[in-house]
Amino acid sequence: MSNPSILILPGDGIGPEVMAQVTRIIDWFGEKRDLKFDVETDLVGGAAYDKHGVPLADETMARAMEVDAVLLGAVGGPKYDDLDFSVKPERGLLRLRKEMDLFSNLRPAQCFDALADFSSLKKDIVSGLDIMIVRELTSGVYFGEPRGIHKEGNERVGINTQRYTESEIARVARSAFELARKRGNKVCSMEKANVMESGILWRDVVQEIHDAEYPDVELSHMYADNGAMQLVRAPKQFDVIVTDNLFGDVLSDCAAMLTGSLGMLPSASLGLPNADGRPKALYEPVHGSAPDITGQGKANPIACILSFAMALRYSFDQGAEATRLEKAVEKVLADGARTADLMGPEGGTPVSTTQMGDVILEAL
Amino acid sequence: MSNPSILILPGDGIGPEVMAQVTRIIDWFGEKRDLKFDVETDLVGGAAYDKHGVPLADETMARAMEVDAVLLGAVGGPKYDDLDFSVKPERGLLRLRKEMDLFSNLRPAQCFDALADFSSLKKDIVSGLDIMIVRELTSGVYFGEPRGIHKEGNERVGINTQRYTESEIARVARSAFELARKRGNKVCSMEKANVMESGILWRDVVQEIHDAEYPDVELSHMYADNGAMQLVRAPKQFDVIVTDNLFGDVLSDCAAMLTGSLGMLPSASLGLPNADGRPKALYEPVHGSAPDITGQGKANPIACILSFAMALRYSFDQGAEATRLEKAVEKVLADGARTADLMGPEGGTPVSTTQMGDVILEAL
Ligand SMILES: CC(C)[C@H](C(=O)O)[C@@H](O)C(=O)O
Ligand SMILES: CC(C)[C@H](C(=O)O)[C@@H](O)C(=O)O
Repeated sequence: MSNPSILILPGDGIGPEVMAQVTRIIDWFGEKRDLKFDVETDLVGGAAYDKHGVPLADETMARAMEVDAVLLGAVGGPKYDDLDFSVKPERGLLRLRKEMDLFSNLRPAQCFDALADFSSLKKDIVSGLDIMIVRELTSGVYFGEPRGIHKEGNERVGINTQRYTESEIARVARSAFELARKRGNKVCSMEKANVMESGILWRDVVQEIHDAEYPDVELSHMYADNGAMQLVRAPKQFDVIVTDNLFGDVLSDCAAMLTGSLGMLPSASLGLPNADGRPKALYEPVHGSAPDITGQGKANPIACILSFAMALRYSFDQGAEATRLEKAVEKVLADGARTADLMGPEGGTPVSTTQMGDVILEAL
Repeated sequence: MSNPSILILPGDGIGPEVMAQVTRIIDWFGEKRDLKFDVETDLVGGAAYDKHGVPLADETMARAMEVDAVLLGAVGGPKYDDLDFSVKPERGLLRLRKEMDLFSNLRPAQCFDALADFSSLKKDIVSGLDIMIVRELTSGVYFGEPRGIHKEGNERVGINTQRYTESEIARVARSAFELARKRGNKVCSMEKANVMESGILWRDVVQEIHDAEYPDVELSHMYADNGAMQLVRAPKQFDVIVTDNLFGDVLSDCAAMLTGSLGMLPSASLGLPNADGRPKALYEPVHGSAPDITGQGKANPIACILSFAMALRYSFDQGAEATRLEKAVEKVLADGARTADLMGPEGGTPVSTTQMGDVILEAL
């Protein structure tokens, strides 16, 4: 039987730097734990545009559909700011999400004990924080038609369409309820049902799926503006949050920043199961391509490494090995290893991107 | 010459309670400062629905168009949750915004010294914070057509339309640049130009207005998700933020909560100037109708009182009197008067809604 396959797309900015450390960790699992993967690497984002004139080549898209998991670094950078909308680096990522039908984006917002001081929030508000944001990722205003800029009389008009079907809402709701059952058994759904009809449908469908299939899970609804407030005021009130593509974008970034652990946060984007039961899946750090620190050995590879841990858990059914990797990361943090973004007043041992890889490998 | 006119719409929940204190303050200005207003009171939101079957009667709308300023308390409450979308309390407020063409919503996020400890953020991150969020209020996904829920085959589909014209963006951009010139001279515009064409148009038009008319103001652009992050990480980097209706809804609530002063924050919604040079205007607290504490004398009237201060400044050209009122509020806080929402570990003198009105009148 062949090994499970992984497509690595390091992308732009610090993407390649952090991904280099993940590659070493994948190798370690092959050598030491007899968990071998067939790994191939390709381009996405600006890097793909530079070579192919598009942010994701068709061949890369085709491979992404075939492999068992995709690991992505980050896309985008100022160099590409003036590109036409249709070939912006982000379009590569959006094409992957859409064509792989990755409707459920899992974004844990977790506060690491060793880093609680990094949060701009008071320690007691965030320490021990552990929220899972489930963001719908293949629909809504990101993909709705009609869209574009056109002329009406003398002036330009910009249009986008927020569009959700019942089944699109139902499937991401299910994925949130399933997750909640393995965690605190509590889901809060966020929309603007007070001003948007698409929000009314969202609320109704989430409630219906709950009542029919997950009555044991505690469900609440909140307007997204209040959601942003409550995340800042008392984030620990939440367990799983489920919301649409656009609110999920803003609220998950807000939640991530609360933790003070932005360079630490992974994400998983999951689709429907293949014949072998594995969901189509893409894993990527929550942070972006950080052009300001690219190439300086300053990037924190942990978010990307923990994204691979999520791959072990969700794509390869290796929960124990995922935990092993997560524990190794916790250990090096407790031991004081700190990339530049983690250097606070209380000190620690400054390490480069590669050195962070070194100590995590040692801890493994 | 007749007195300037004010239409008071107390609305639902704590709206009437906080507005009662504002009425006393308006009377004080008439008696002691010879600033007389013709005040009339009417219904909006659930209160209007209960009487008229609609959340804003046509006669009320007509009066709102005629008066010099509208003061609104709050709308909404659980009692109205199951009403049809078209008659929900919120529709009354949205109708006022739309028909009065109140395109520029000014939402200061300000941290009051005496209350810095209330923020969930660390004191050094928020103390002295003073941001002005300028939110577009008459367009975008709140009002775009087509909208609604319909059937496609067997399933329901929910649709809303984000739509911005060049002139809608230009006028709110101008209002942000004008404000910036009177403050820190810095504007940050937020959108999702990386995924939404309406965001591209937003960014382009803001930049064009800047280059042509306000080159002296410092302008930057930020994606709204990053904006949410930066608000949490380091809010003091901002002076004026300009953004669309929906992002403005979420980001201004997030910013308001950062300050720890939610019960303190006023807002002004301004339209085009009338023949007499006064802009059409509606003033309201940022907080909602707070059904959980309605009728208990617990509500903090300060946000509503400071909204009247904004009316003095923006509608009645009484900047000095506005400052007098704001200083009175600061004084009672410094003296320790605290409604329930302001009661922290460091104590203070607990006061009811009415007592807070009493001490502010005394301080005046
Ligand atoms: C890069 C961008 C297209 C993307 C998004 O808006 O979804 C990013 O912000 C994210 O959250 O993954
Ligand atoms: C009450 C509601 C319609 C309103 C909005 O969404 O604009 C409120 O949240 C606000 O921010 O004023």
